[in-house]
Amino acid sequence: MATVHESPVPHLTTASMGPPHEVERRILDNQAKIECWFRGQWRKTPAPFYTSVDLRNAGFKIAPVDTNLFPAGFNNLNPDFEPLSIQAIQLAVEHLDRTVDRILIVPENHTRNRFYLENVATLRGLIESAGFAVRLGSLLPDLTQPTAVKLDSGRELLLEPVQRTGRRLHVGDFDPDLVLLNNDLSGGVPAVLEDLEQMVRPSPRLGWSTRLKSVHFSFYQQVAREFAELLGIDPWLIDPMFRNCGAIDFMKREGQSCLEMNIESLLTAIRKKYDEYGIEGEPYVMVKADAGTYGMGVMSIRSAKEMLELNRKQRTSMSTAKEGQKITKVIIQEGVYTHETWGPQSNVAEPVVYLIDQNVVGGFYRVHSARSSSENLNAPGMRFEPLAFDDCCIAPDKDQSPEAHPNRFYAYGVIARLAGLAAARESASVS
Amino acid sequence: MATVHESPVPHLTTASMGPPHEVERRILDNQAKIECWFRGQWRKTPAPFYTSVDLRNAGFKIAPVDTNLFPAGFNNLNPDFEPLSIQAIQLAVEHLDRTVDRILIVPENHTRNRFYLENVATLRGLIESAGFAVRLGSLLPDLTQPTAVKLDSGRELLLEPVQRTGRRLHVGDFDPDLVLLNNDLSGGVPAVLEDLEQMVRPSPRLGWSTRLKSVHFSFYQQVAREFAELLGIDPWLIDPMFRNCGAIDFMKREGQSCLEMNIESLLTAIRKKYDEYGIEGEPYVMVKADAGTYGMGVMSIRSAKEMLELNRKQRTSMSTAKEGQKITKVIIQEGVYTHETWGPQSNVAEPVVYLIDQNVVGGFYRVHSARSSSENLNAPGMRFEPLAFDDCCIAPDKDQSPEAHPNRFYAYGVIARLAGLAAARESASVS
Repeated sequence: MATVHESPVPHLTTASMGPPHEVERRILDNQAKIECWFRGQWRKTPAPFYTSVDLRNAGFKIAPVDTNLFPAGFNNLNPDFEPLSIQAIQLAVEHLDRTVDRILIVPENHTRNRFYLENVATLRGLIESAGFAVRLGSLLPDLTQPTAVKLDSGRELLLEPVQRTGRRLHVGDFDPDLVLLNNDLSGGVPAVLEDLEQMVRPSPRLGWSTRLKSVHFSFYQQVAREFAELLGIDPWLIDPMFRNCGAIDFMKREGQSCLEMNIESLLTAIRKKYDEYGIEGEPYVMVKADAGTYGMGVMSIRSAKEMLELNRKQRTSMSTAKEGQKITKVIIQEGVYTHETWGPQSNVAEPVVYLIDQNVVGGFYRVHSARSSSENLNAPGMRFEPLAFDDCCIAPDKDQSPEAHPNRFYAYGVIARLAGLAAARESASVS
Repeated sequence: MATVHESPVPHLTTASMGPPHEVERRILDNQAKIECWFRGQWRKTPAPFYTSVDLRNAGFKIAPVDTNLFPAGFNNLNPDFEPLSIQAIQLAVEHLDRTVDRILIVPENHTRNRFYLENVATLRGLIESAGFAVRLGSLLPDLTQPTAVKLDSGRELLLEPVQRTGRRLHVGDFDPDLVLLNNDLSGGVPAVLEDLEQMVRPSPRLGWSTRLKSVHFSFYQQVAREFAELLGIDPWLIDPMFRNCGAIDFMKREGQSCLEMNIESLLTAIRKKYDEYGIEGEPYVMVKADAGTYGMGVMSIRSAKEMLELNRKQRTSMSTAKEGQKITKVIIQEGVYTHETWGPQSNVAEPVVYLIDQNVVGGFYRVHSARSSSENLNAPGMRFEPLAFDDCCIAPDKDQSPEAHPNRFYAYGVIARLAGLAAARESASVS
């Protein structure tokens, strides 16, 4: 805990952008009511094991733009808050209502992505500190024997090939009680994970081969409506509008009319809201693969015309997601400006909040040097600097103004939990 | 989190004092096993709402010497770990398995003890941050209307007289779902708390008018045996031996033979253990009120003769506990040397660990400038400097030696949880 930080909290520039801090203020004023509401919600629908939520803060609006059920990036969190994660992991396991002592983490197959592997090392460390035996079971087909990987941090990971005996997954003689997926199964659910006797969390059915962003955001829309009613605010202040198209082929230019129509209708709806709140700035939408992650197949669009005029290279980039999956379904999501900037260059900063079970355990900012406030910061080839939150997001301070750091972070934690609750309902709907 | 600490961890002097760090080493080596064991134990016996545990570390031995079910001193904890307390409070309430949104804290009647009132303010703040509405219901007979108290920290407390309507306790129109006692009921259970419809935690039957330290330490002895078996160690390394006498009158010199016999037998037992482990230093025992707290009626004794030769003043001081309760029952407990010292004067430092539900949330040291390593640091008129733990006690580091700070604090957290588990069994036995 003996670290010194130089106020590493991004600056929020909200001049001329509608009613600022309204969301933070309402959240701060209703804290006990909000927590009471969440308690009731988690009783009805248990939270996913873990979640990370990409947020955008436009000053007049704070909204989630992506919710990851197989979160990476634990290595980007502030080590000062690790105890919070450790305690939350213990609770998450308690909520499984089974005796769990041994946990097998199934990581992504990115053996060369050292950032990702640092995440796995941190996650393993947290779960070990929480008092569980942990091993890493890799799905990599080429991995035929236990393989040690030395990380830049000096830590070492032992990746072991998963084995299956009957309906049990194991690595060597380590027979886990819980299989924890940190792999989003973009390539589909491998046979080895089907019909296991052991508990697998999150459910493989929530992998990106089946999960759709548009389904998640439908659940989110409903959650946002209920929450907005609780607070007496316009749900739009916390909810990004969206449309979706189901049969797109970017290369063959199929499904163009659906795209065109939805982009126009969404831009019109956003424009109407901007007018209502007197917000300056040009509406835009994000077009993303409906199934997918890692910011592949994502673009920022300001008019349907722009969509029609994509060149071949752009269309190629939009047509393929992670692990070569072809994109045929897209979500067109309201673009939410990022009005947080950091450092002397005023680099754009996008918050990512982490939940373990129903608890917020911290987060970090993606700080990007070369991108504008309306671009996607989680994009292919994206280079960002992680900036760990200097706040735990769970301790608001009523003696300070709504925009003060502890209160801004508390608001982030609340919005992230709304996305977590949407994910909980989504999870319940597939199981 | 932007605080700078100058390594505020007391120094442990263990030269010539038997096998040092054996307990820490065994605990560190068996971390997953220990956590697994605790998980099973908490499933069987839910933890008290909150607990503070006074520990003593003699190098060769780490043992609890007092377990408080109505802990004060939350203001002495490191603010950096408040998030951990907030999360733990949420879990504690979840474990009550009832809808709880409003909590009434019933504090001690110490309206002039500003340190105690700071504790109440901190506790209230933590529970509010956890998302509950909180009010303070005082049992003070003189308090007839809501009274604001301004604290040195600048905070303000509103003490309100408790009222009872039917079987419900309330303050004004605030009808709580949970009554949280921060009052150890040394003077007996007031009628206003009897047979309430609302949940009262901890149970008033655990107040010091009925609770006995010797009963607690009987439960602890059993817990220590089970835990020692798990680790393959001598239970004595974590358990202070004790005897008790039931019908003492210090003023009338009644019950002297029981005291004499037990003091001698305990000193002999300690000497045997010291010989077994080659421990230098003179055995001593603590004679304490069996029912009572706040270090009243406590003395350190090196021989039965010393007990017989008490002067009138000493006998008077031993005969009365908090709120004028007469001491008729005593516990004679093995004295455990404190071998932790702090600062240039090598002041004696005694750790106090805090639990909320089953979670360790931090602790502090009582640092005393004028006392020796065998005296009680929680004694009448005692002046101590609180030194907040610089560690959360839940994140051991296997890459460091067993005596490294995170591991020493983790061991403290484990021993404190053993005392918490004993308190849990004790609570179950009265309810």
